[in-house]
This record gives sequence, C-alpha cells and structure tokens, in this order.
Amino acid sequence: MPDRWPSHRNTTEEVSTRRQLGQTTSCVTVKRYRAAAMTSLQLLAKDEMLEKFLDAAARGDLSQVSALLTHIPSLLNQAGCSGWTALMLAARNGHYHVVEALLAHGCDKFSVNSSSQTAYDIAKFWGHRHISHLLSQTDDGSRQVLPGCDLRQQENYFSRETLERLSCKRTDKVWLEEKQSDPETVYLLFSNLCPMVSSSQDDDETAGEAKLCHFRYEAVKDLVEKATTVLVFLGVEKRKKPPSSSSLSSSQMGEVGREPPAWFAISTDEEAAELLKRSREKNCFFPKTPNRDLLKLSEEEAGVVAQARSVLAWHSRYSFCPTCGSSTKPEEGGYKRSCLNSTCRSLQGVHNTCYPRVDPVVIMLVIHPDGNQCLLGRKKIFPVNMFSCLAGFIEPGETIEDAVRREVEEESGVKVGPVQYVSCQPWPMPSNLMIGCLAVALSTDIRVDENEIEEAQWFPRQQVIDSVFRGVQKGLTVPPRQTIAHQLIKHWIGMNSNL
Amino acid sequence: MPDRWPSHRNTTEEVSTRRQLGQTTSCVTVKRYRAAAMTSLQLLAKDEMLEKFLDAAARGDLSQVSALLTHIPSLLNQAGCSGWTALMLAARNGHYHVVEALLAHGCDKFSVNSSSQTAYDIAKFWGHRHISHLLSQTDDGSRQVLPGCDLRQQENYFSRETLERLSCKRTDKVWLEEKQSDPETVYLLFSNLCPMVSSSQDDDETAGEAKLCHFRYEAVKDLVEKATTVLVFLGVEKRKKPPSSSSLSSSQMGEVGREPPAWFAISTDEEAAELLKRSREKNCFFPKTPNRDLLKLSEEEAGVVAQARSVLAWHSRYSFCPTCGSSTKPEEGGYKRSCLNSTCRSLQGVHNTCYPRVDPVVIMLVIHPDGNQCLLGRKKIFPVNMFSCLAGFIEPGETIEDAVRREVEEESGVKVGPVQYVSCQPWPMPSNLMIGCLAVALSTDIRVDENEIEEAQWFPRQQVIDSVFRGVQKGLTVPPRQTIAHQLIKHWIGMNSNL
Ligand SMILES: [Zn+2]
Ligand SMILES: [Zn+2]
Repeated sequence: MPDRWPSHRNTTEEVSTRRQLGQTTSCVTVKRYRAAAMTSLQLLAKDEMLEKFLDAAARGDLSQVSALLTHIPSLLNQAGCSGWTALMLAARNGHYHVVEALLAHGCDKFSVNSSSQTAYDIAKFWGHRHISHLLSQTDDGSRQVLPGCDLRQQENYFSRETLERLSCKRTDKVWLEEKQSDPETVYLLFSNLCPMVSSSQDDDETAGEAKLCHFRYEAVKDLVEKATTVLVFLGVEKRKKPPSSSSLSSSQMGEVGREPPAWFAISTDEEAAELLKRSREKNCFFPKTPNRDLLKLSEEEAGVVAQARSVLAWHSRYSFCPTCGSSTKPEEGGYKRSCLNSTCRSLQGVHNTCYPRVDPVVIMLVIHPDGNQCLLGRKKIFPVNMFSCLAGFIEPGETIEDAVRREVEEESGVKVGPVQYVSCQPWPMPSNLMIGCLAVALSTDIRVDENEIEEAQWFPRQQVIDSVFRGVQKGLTVPPRQTIAHQLIKHWIGMNSNL
Repeated sequence: MPDRWPSHRNTTEEVSTRRQLGQTTSCVTVKRYRAAAMTSLQLLAKDEMLEKFLDAAARGDLSQVSALLTHIPSLLNQAGCSGWTALMLAARNGHYHVVEALLAHGCDKFSVNSSSQTAYDIAKFWGHRHISHLLSQTDDGSRQVLPGCDLRQQENYFSRETLERLSCKRTDKVWLEEKQSDPETVYLLFSNLCPMVSSSQDDDETAGEAKLCHFRYEAVKDLVEKATTVLVFLGVEKRKKPPSSSSLSSSQMGEVGREPPAWFAISTDEEAAELLKRSREKNCFFPKTPNRDLLKLSEEEAGVVAQARSVLAWHSRYSFCPTCGSSTKPEEGGYKRSCLNSTCRSLQGVHNTCYPRVDPVVIMLVIHPDGNQCLLGRKKIFPVNMFSCLAGFIEPGETIEDAVRREVEEESGVKVGPVQYVSCQPWPMPSNLMIGCLAVALSTDIRVDENEIEEAQWFPRQQVIDSVFRGVQKGLTVPPRQTIAHQLIKHWIGMNSNL
C-alpha cells in the first residue's frame, strides 16, 4: 500500500517550508510521521475504509475522497492515528481542493489531533497560507463585520460550555424542583470540591483519562433532600443541531416538547468512601490533587467541572455574611447566598456579597524587543526545569493592560509596553478567570522578586519550539497543554512562523 | 488674520472625505469649526504666539512651525480652543510633514481635545490614512513584534494610573509608618465611599468639574491614629521622565535619594460635616450620587479614585470573615483582612476571602450581521431615550466570550457569533472591571427579558453617528464619554469610517 504520510514525497516543499521557518523542525517532523506510518499499518485491519479515506485526503485525491464520502458519510470527521483527520492531512500537504470539498461536506474544522492542533494550526505552521485563510473563514460573513478579528476563537481547557446555564430558571423554584426529581436529570457528586470520576485504567487510578460519574435522582435522592447538602443547578444539555444537510424539521426529529436533561452538582458532608459505594461503575474515585487530576478530564467534561467547582468552592468559603457575620442560606439554584439576619445591610439593594466570586487574573507571555525571545519564570514549587508565563491578580481599579505591566515589572523588573489580549480560561482553583495576553518588553534586564518567583529567563524561540513541538526539554519544560500558559506560548510560536 | 480652521479651505478634500464616509457628517463639522474660529479670536490677546503656532500647523506651514518651536519649545503640546493641539490641527488637515516634525520634537500624541479625540482619531476619521498610520506607530518596534496589535491603547475613564502601587511595600510596616507621617504624603478623605472634592463652580457644587481635596499629615493625624479608621496605601507618584531631548542624568536633576510622595485614602466614621471643616479650600463637598458625580473628575484624578473607592467599599462590606463569621482586621496597607479567630480555616493557606474583590463584567456592542446597525438596550432607570450596550457579570467557570454570548441571548434573544475584545475600564461601583467587546450577531429577532432591560433595538449607523458626533438625539441618547459603552460605540463607528 502507498505510504500516506508525506515524509518522502514532498521533499521540495519541505525544503522551502524549512527555509521559511528558518529552523530545522521539519527533519524531526519527518521522523514522527514515519513512526506514525508504521503504526497506521496496524489500524488497517480495523478500519480499511477509514484508512483509504485518510490516505486519499493526504494524497490530494479529490475524486476518491468524494466517492468514499458518498458511500460512507460518517467518515467525514473520523480520525486515524494520532488523531489526524482527513482535513488535517489535506491541510498538512497543501491540498486546497480537498480541504474545500471537506468543508463543503460540513466537516468539523475545529477538531484537534492528539497534539491539540486544528487543521488551521497545521496549515499555518506548514506555510499553506491559502488553506489557513480558507480554514479561518466563517460562513456568516462575520469577517467583514469585524475586520481584523481572529474569528477562529482559541478554545482553552475548562472553556467548553456543553450546557446552557438557563440562569432565568434559577429563580423558578417549581421548575427547579421538578427537574430535581426528573429521571433524566444528571447529578455529579463532589467531595472536598472534586467530582467523582472513573479511571480508564484498571490498576492505577492516577494514570489515564478520568470520566465523570453520572447519577440519577433515585441514586442520590437522600442527599438531595438533606439540609446540609449544597445543590447547584448547572444548566440543561445544549440541543444537538440536526445535521446541516438534513431537511428534517425539529418536529420530525421527535424533539418537540421534550426539554433536554438538566444537570446538578451535589456537595455533601457524607464521607467520600460512602459516596463511592453509590456508584455501580468500577474504578471510581475522588481526585486528591485537583491541580493535576482535574486536567485528565475530556475537553467535553472539563467545562462543567470548572463551573461546578467554582460555585461549590464559594459555598464552602462564603457560608457567613461578610457584612454582618451571620449565617447565610443558599438560594437561586446555588448562585446566591442570603443573610439570615433580617436587619443586615446586605439585604437592602444588590451587593456582590451575595453572589459567587470570580477573580480575574492576568497571565502574559512577554516578548523580547527583538521578537525572538520570550520571558518565562519559575516558582520554587515547579517541577525541575519547568518555566511558565508570569501571572497575577488584577487589583481593584486596575485595567487588564496595567495589571500586566505592573505584575511583569514587580516579578521580573522588566518594563512592558503594548499588551494584546489573546484568549482566556476559567481556572477553578478555586475560581479564577485567567486572561491571557501577549506583551512586548521595553527593557530586558531581569531583576527577580524572590517572594514571587525563583528565577526568570529570556528563552530563545528555537529552544521554546524544541520544548513544545519536539519534546526536547534541555533546560526547559513548559506547562501542559491544558494550561493557557502553554497555549500562549504556542500562539506566539505560531504567530511568527511565516516570518 | 487668516482663519486657521479648515472649513472653507479644504472644500475638495471635504467632499471626497464625505464620499468616503458615505454620510453628511462633514457639513456639521464645518459649522462646529466656524464657531470655534470665532472664539479663538478671544484667545488672541492672551497668547498670540500659541495662536500663530496653531495656525501654522493647521495651514501646514512647516517652516513657521519649526521656527516657533525653536524659540518657544513649550508651545509643542499646548492646546487652543476646544483643546485642539498643533498635532491635531495638522492631522485634521492632512499635513503629513508637520505631523512628522511635531512627533520628531517629542510631541505627546496621546493628548485629547475636549471631545476626547486624539490626533490619531482625527486623522482616521478624516481619512488621512498615511497620517493615522504614522500616529499609530510606536518608537520601539513593537509593531513588528506584535503584528496585528493595535498599539494605540484606548484609554478609558477611571483607567489612568498616576501612582505606582508599589505593592511590595504593603508588607513593610516600618516604611508605611514613615510614609504616613511624611509631610509630603497626600491624604484623600472619603465619607460614605466618596472622596472630598472641591467644585470649580462657586455657586453650584453639582455643576462643573470636581477636584480632589488633598490633605497633609498634620491635618488628618488624629484620623490616621483612630482605631476605627481604614487607611489604604494607594502608591507613590510616578516619577516624571526627564524630557527626551535632555542629556542630563537623573543625578544632575537633583532627584536622587528623594522618594516621590506617597498617597493614602482614609475612610472614617467621623461625620461628613466635621470632615469638611478640615479643609481650607472653598466649595468642598462629598458627592452624593457617585454614579454621576465621580464622572466629573479629571482623567488624571479618576484612576486613583477608582482604586481607593473599590478597596474602601470592600472594607465596608467585608469586615466579617465569610468562612467563619468572626471579625477581621485590615493588614498590608489595606489590601488584606485577616480573621481574628485563630482556628479559622482562612488562616491556613492562601484564600481569596482575605483579599479585595474585583468583579469582571462583560459589556458589548453587538453588531448586526449587515454591519450597519448595532444593538442597544435600555433599563427602566435610564433617562428618556438613553440606550446603552448590553452588559452582565461573568459567571464562575465562564470565558469572556461565552459570557458575552450568554448575556446577549438572555437579555435580548439575539444569538452572537464572534467576539472581539476592545478595551476595559475599572468601574468602582463598587468594584467592577468592565471588559469591553464587539460582537457579531448571528440572528436579528429581538425578544427582551423584561427583568433585565425594558427595551432593545437595532440602531442604524447613521442615527448612532448623529447622536454621538452631532448631538442630534432624535430617539437616541448614548451614555456619556466617561463610560466604556460610549467608547465602544465610538470604536465601532471609527472602525468602519474608511469603508
Ligand atoms: Zn448579614
Ligand atoms: Zn474566619
């Protein structure tokens, strides 16, 4: 069979790409692709059609891609080894018409491979500008309305909203109570601010992926009714859109009148061991180190955990009224706590004391004035060689941009000029909103504040690329892909790959 | 004397500009300029040289501009009527070489006229692209480092930082106490979360500009020492940079060893009337309606009031420990409150309960898919005909972009696609961070949530321009220039002025 990976076929193109990048990434990439090609042989028996389809996309064989899709439409978004889809392979090898055809079939252009790259990332990295441009276009003309806006929103971990919050229902007690006892309703059980999950590994619960354990009303009825339980309404499942090619109306889909299932989070004082007995699944546990273990969820499940954990942490820390010191009681589906002292000032007018807290944090990658180095720092508690972006809380009366300048100067002594917002990430430890920025340094001398960080250094672009993409970690490990620090670093590398 | 205003001189240019804008703004602008020309005559006696200088810049007379600057360098940043500087006039009339020369002399390109427009705004509005491009360039090459970044940061009201916060000094009790009794130290007195100000109007304290009353240690010594007083360290004055053309080192400037003055805010339970007696200035008062009165400060003073008011509001509302209900005591220059119950969980580890709260809010201008209308809403409490941007608090576990989408759909029923961050503004009522975005609608039907807003409407671009720039308020008044809503609307209008 033909090797569908482009390693030895695109030599000319690769050389020119390498020249464009001004670096030697492609050599290593070749090796990675060869390894992938070998394992792909093992897949052959399992799904020959998928293999053929991916191969056709990688070779740019438009007629075979179209023929296969006509026979088996479900191939469209399927991924082969290392999570590469047909769209990614076509984007990798610069096959414009195949990319176009896949998009016309309604292909999901936002899916990522196991290195968290979208087809757009891949096309951009390999210098296929016409394809990255095509992939960045939206179907709704928004690009004309907002010129200069990068419409391909970066999605960070903890950021995907799979539920509609339906905040208007929080004050509807009757509706909420009906939902609580609805047999379709999904409950998540929390202990010590961590959700019960099951591990994909039989033997070692700390390895592998973690999956949320779902409970139905019958299994948690006693907890729901307990006075000490905190119950948070998380929302209802977003309706799946009917396939765009389908002409079925929603009534034909049998969806009319049926509300999608509601989700709740439960926090209780019952012992973790007792709670675990409620599950029929194997390998259930409550993560012990949230900073690490909560990063093992799927993108699909991480968002709802961020929401639930932040609200539950607030209940745990803010059970007394900060205005008068009295006890408070939860209200509005868990999004409010009201003071039980009827003469309290907090009951007159609207005050933030009654509502969950969200702490905005700036996190920034500072770029050297020469454009080819970035500033990373490490705290004493970091693993050996790990460096990350600087970060700090936004203070009262401060803008995002001024907070970036102040924090960088305080922590590293480096002065910062322009600041550019990139993307943000909820970080439920316990309730931060990480606002990710790039910033340009105006000075380069480093003078570290040792109360904040242990060390800060300028790292050359090549060393950062080696660490992020090639796994070469000589003196530098960056934080995992689930962190916005990682994504900011990747964003910076990607930004200039066409220089 | 020659009329320095461009009204009748640039007819051809104006017609073409008007064509570019696709609207009739320029006619009205002409009228405004004529009015300004008349009042400028009154200034003549007062400062003939300034008038000559501004006139030369407006006419594009490079040699006279240069000659005058050689004689009187201080003319460089001086403003004539309506706050127009030489740079703005040259930018208005498209005199590239004069703009260039003024910048070479170190002219402040960020100063604004009385309509809050910078020279860049003016050049952009009048379609002088080569000049707006020149004005948007930075001196440090940052544009190359961050391509696509609008380096000309929008400065909103409440956003200017005139003090360095020096957060590292908050834990230095000895230093703080020395500063408190330093005769150079500036104290601001707050009553009911508003600072004492003096009015520029003799007769009516609610009209005109408000100016912060400064106190020295001797005048407030008793308050500083009172146990019930809350004292917040605001920072030290930023050192003025020596003029860029100067070759004097800082030691020659006689600045070595002298620390710049520190600022503190004082909140006390003493009666407002008693506090007012401490001032030697006339027309002092404490604003009663902060939402309106705090917008009368200068840009220079608004930022420090935002900082002080937010922190003081937190002290006022969070004097009890939310984790255990005990009393707390202020620490770290007013940026921390620690629980007095020594067994409290809040004393183990670091928790947000001990630190001031900042509430992130999204505020967004939603643009119609056709690009020529925007969505504005009004609350019942708004003045007649006033409409503003939609806004709402960011929830736990939510990104900025998702909060925009959720709030717009909840309040107006309109679905939103791409979201673009523009700028932000601290809003000390009591401690919000307004995160300003543009958003593109994917649907247009409006279905208002009447608990949130009374009405929402699509407004055509022309009607918005009329209201913002021409004062024509047929059915639409937008919020005042001090609000980020106003600035977002102006940003949207400006964005497309070259279409
Ligand atoms: Zn209370
Ligand atoms: Zn306590």
